[in-house]
Amino acid sequence: MTTPPLNPADDAFAARLRAAGLPEDAFRPVEPRYLEERRGLLQGRAGLVVAPRVTEEVATVIRAANTARVGVVPYGGGTGLVGGQVCADGPAPLVLSLERMGAIRGVWPEENVLVAEAGAVLAEVQAAAEAVDRLFPLSLASEGTARIGGTLATNAGGVNVLRYGNARELCLGIEAVLPDGSVMHGLKRLRKDNTGYDLRGLLVGAEGTLGVITAAALRLFPRPAREGTALMVVASPRAALELLALAGARVGPGLNAFELISGQGMGFLAETGCTARVPFTDLPDWAVLIDLGLGPGDDPEAALADLFEAGAAAGLVSDGVIAHSEAQRAGLWAMREQIPEANKRVGAIGSHDISLPLSAIPDFLVVAGEAVARLGPYRVNAFGHLGDGNLHYNVFPPEGRTKSDFPGAREIVARTVHDIVAGFDGSFSAEHGVGRFKVDDLARYGDPARLAVMRAIKAALDPQGIMNPGAVLG
Amino acid sequence: MTTPPLNPADDAFAARLRAAGLPEDAFRPVEPRYLEERRGLLQGRAGLVVAPRVTEEVATVIRAANTARVGVVPYGGGTGLVGGQVCADGPAPLVLSLERMGAIRGVWPEENVLVAEAGAVLAEVQAAAEAVDRLFPLSLASEGTARIGGTLATNAGGVNVLRYGNARELCLGIEAVLPDGSVMHGLKRLRKDNTGYDLRGLLVGAEGTLGVITAAALRLFPRPAREGTALMVVASPRAALELLALAGARVGPGLNAFELISGQGMGFLAETGCTARVPFTDLPDWAVLIDLGLGPGDDPEAALADLFEAGAAAGLVSDGVIAHSEAQRAGLWAMREQIPEANKRVGAIGSHDISLPLSAIPDFLVVAGEAVARLGPYRVNAFGHLGDGNLHYNVFPPEGRTKSDFPGAREIVARTVHDIVAGFDGSFSAEHGVGRFKVDDLARYGDPARLAVMRAIKAALDPQGIMNPGAVLG
Repeated sequence: MTTPPLNPADDAFAARLRAAGLPEDAFRPVEPRYLEERRGLLQGRAGLVVAPRVTEEVATVIRAANTARVGVVPYGGGTGLVGGQVCADGPAPLVLSLERMGAIRGVWPEENVLVAEAGAVLAEVQAAAEAVDRLFPLSLASEGTARIGGTLATNAGGVNVLRYGNARELCLGIEAVLPDGSVMHGLKRLRKDNTGYDLRGLLVGAEGTLGVITAAALRLFPRPAREGTALMVVASPRAALELLALAGARVGPGLNAFELISGQGMGFLAETGCTARVPFTDLPDWAVLIDLGLGPGDDPEAALADLFEAGAAAGLVSDGVIAHSEAQRAGLWAMREQIPEANKRVGAIGSHDISLPLSAIPDFLVVAGEAVARLGPYRVNAFGHLGDGNLHYNVFPPEGRTKSDFPGAREIVARTVHDIVAGFDGSFSAEHGVGRFKVDDLARYGDPARLAVMRAIKAALDPQGIMNPGAVLG
Repeated sequence: MTTPPLNPADDAFAARLRAAGLPEDAFRPVEPRYLEERRGLLQGRAGLVVAPRVTEEVATVIRAANTARVGVVPYGGGTGLVGGQVCADGPAPLVLSLERMGAIRGVWPEENVLVAEAGAVLAEVQAAAEAVDRLFPLSLASEGTARIGGTLATNAGGVNVLRYGNARELCLGIEAVLPDGSVMHGLKRLRKDNTGYDLRGLLVGAEGTLGVITAAALRLFPRPAREGTALMVVASPRAALELLALAGARVGPGLNAFELISGQGMGFLAETGCTARVPFTDLPDWAVLIDLGLGPGDDPEAALADLFEAGAAAGLVSDGVIAHSEAQRAGLWAMREQIPEANKRVGAIGSHDISLPLSAIPDFLVVAGEAVARLGPYRVNAFGHLGDGNLHYNVFPPEGRTKSDFPGAREIVARTVHDIVAGFDGSFSAEHGVGRFKVDDLARYGDPARLAVMRAIKAALDPQGIMNPGAVLG
């Protein structure tokens, strides 16, 4: 299918929006913040920025855009890592910011449900849950800025997916404006609803290409009464996986997070002056951060000590630290959480948000490590959500040099890493999405039948191609 | 969109299948079992029955059916409760049975993943998981007959959804044959894969109208080391919900199931000669069955006793039984599990698989009870998966009479109950799907924008309308 080119979001279109009833205060200046990719990887364009206050205004905007064939780029917190929120090519689009739709529409603690508008900041949603003694478990580095609509549109992950699932699994229902401007009312507060196709699941993760999520019913959970954290030194990634299985059997469903940390990552913390302290004299090659959330009658420190002993007896664990206070817990987590900052300070040649079948991870690390070494004198920091099979496989220049010393390396490294991932039946995007940066990867590695269905759905729901043009399917 | 009428699956079409290479042993006699709805509610038709042995044969069948415009009814175990597997109208379709594709293609205990073909019986999948000391938690009354493809196509629920999610959440990836006969290869063993639209989630629950699931990668879990079960008498459904919240806070994530049982249901057990024994001298109005699965260091009996005491102190629980042996656990579960059989023996005027926002359940039960009483001298057995907000709200004739004494009541009762459910923002199908019996309900209660999207997707993926004609969208 070919569609005619889109039209720019120009003054004439602004006049149409006004004529359609969009109030003046919805028009925002085209500020740089709407056009910048945070790492400077893409410079966006916009003919207009609008920030509606209510769903009906969003519908007015989309309906007008569909009629006028104007591209619409939905904009949440701007923290996406794959360029999904920044449109650099084609006629200047309209940026649709959800920033003024940030209400928590309701909280039902007895149902463990919260309904938030798309513009609510993730940390505010977490706080609204905490205010009624509940947990909204989605937790990301960017949670102080990311908005819930964007985290749903990208099906965001984070550190608690192991226990609670990703954004899609935390979402019971959505309200969304479809590409024709109609409003899909689906804010059901239901755990089970088998009445036709799962459009909630389809729009979640569609990165704004099939419509704009305007509000969502989100799952809350009881707050774990007792929490505990440990850092354990493991002999190898394979030992880490065996420890994960041991934790599943011994600790059961209270395992919140199981994060892999590499010696390289710990080294970067010191190298870049991060404040987090590594609690070992000699940096180990590999460690895992284990976080538990248990019931009021449980003792997480004892459970972690038991796991440590079992791991040591099995030859998996050689050293470890169990937090004995909230401050110590925070210190261990700081180590994990400052690694992305340390990475940024070192300056990655390439960052790869990959996932693999769990049992393939040890072999992948060997094969990929050897392949990257053949490309140049690079350093690899592979870390992340081991419990989910999700690694951030980041490649860096050697000490004393910068990524600008290796022009062109980014593409070669990415292709090498992603080819190896594909060979292990893995994914080139575990939690960040496709956006604009990985459109070529999707075309290359995606199953042809699956791609054909995606294109057919896109053409059926958005025949003009106005929604987030250029994202996901290109 | 109007599509031309389908053609019958006649001898000429059989010849085309043979010419396309479908082997002779794939053709099956058109036996009654493929055409019967288990409760006799619908008499199906079929021009041909085929049972392919491999995915490529399924693709051959679908490709030929698409070319010849012949309707295809996918057939698993035949246990669906909404007529999705039985086509009574229109040109005689082809029934595509998955019964010969029952292989477990692989088990990865260290990944907690199993790949099964669509024809694998659910109980066999459970057994394959148990054989490697893992749990596949999907559990249904019909698990000895239901096949995994059908449970996925209908996004089946069951007693463990509270803890482990429904079929969609237990499925990591699928292989499916699409309406054009292409094969979507998506058997990823990945916990996270954000590479475009969630077609796995779309085909799961689409009831065979968008393609045929031929295999699935399924999530396994560690088997809970210590399990426990209790039956507690609660003062009211509201008290049951407060006890559920208490259980969430005190027991945490080890809560496997939280099932509501009504005094009427317990009465039916005795009335119909079921073997399950109610462990109370006087039948209570309401009770809940609580099932825990905890870690090796935990004591489920103590946890249940603690919950009982807390519930009693809060005035929620007045009596109870905690199982002290596996035999006692089985006895308590038998009570819950024999209720559908007792219902069948009494003979329901109408069975309603509904879900509600949790906090709406007490008011719903009052309003619906009054409305049903106004319709006639009926008895109501409302029971089921309270933790999921999912009730089976079944309406029966008074003692000594049968449903045939109340001609026409079925439709009026269903409309009354479903109208009230809709008024409480509930769903007319929590876990059984739409099939053919609830097509009118979907048209009546479905959000118009959502229905339009569903129709657009159906038309885009299956423009000839060959896949399970008449199901879901009519």
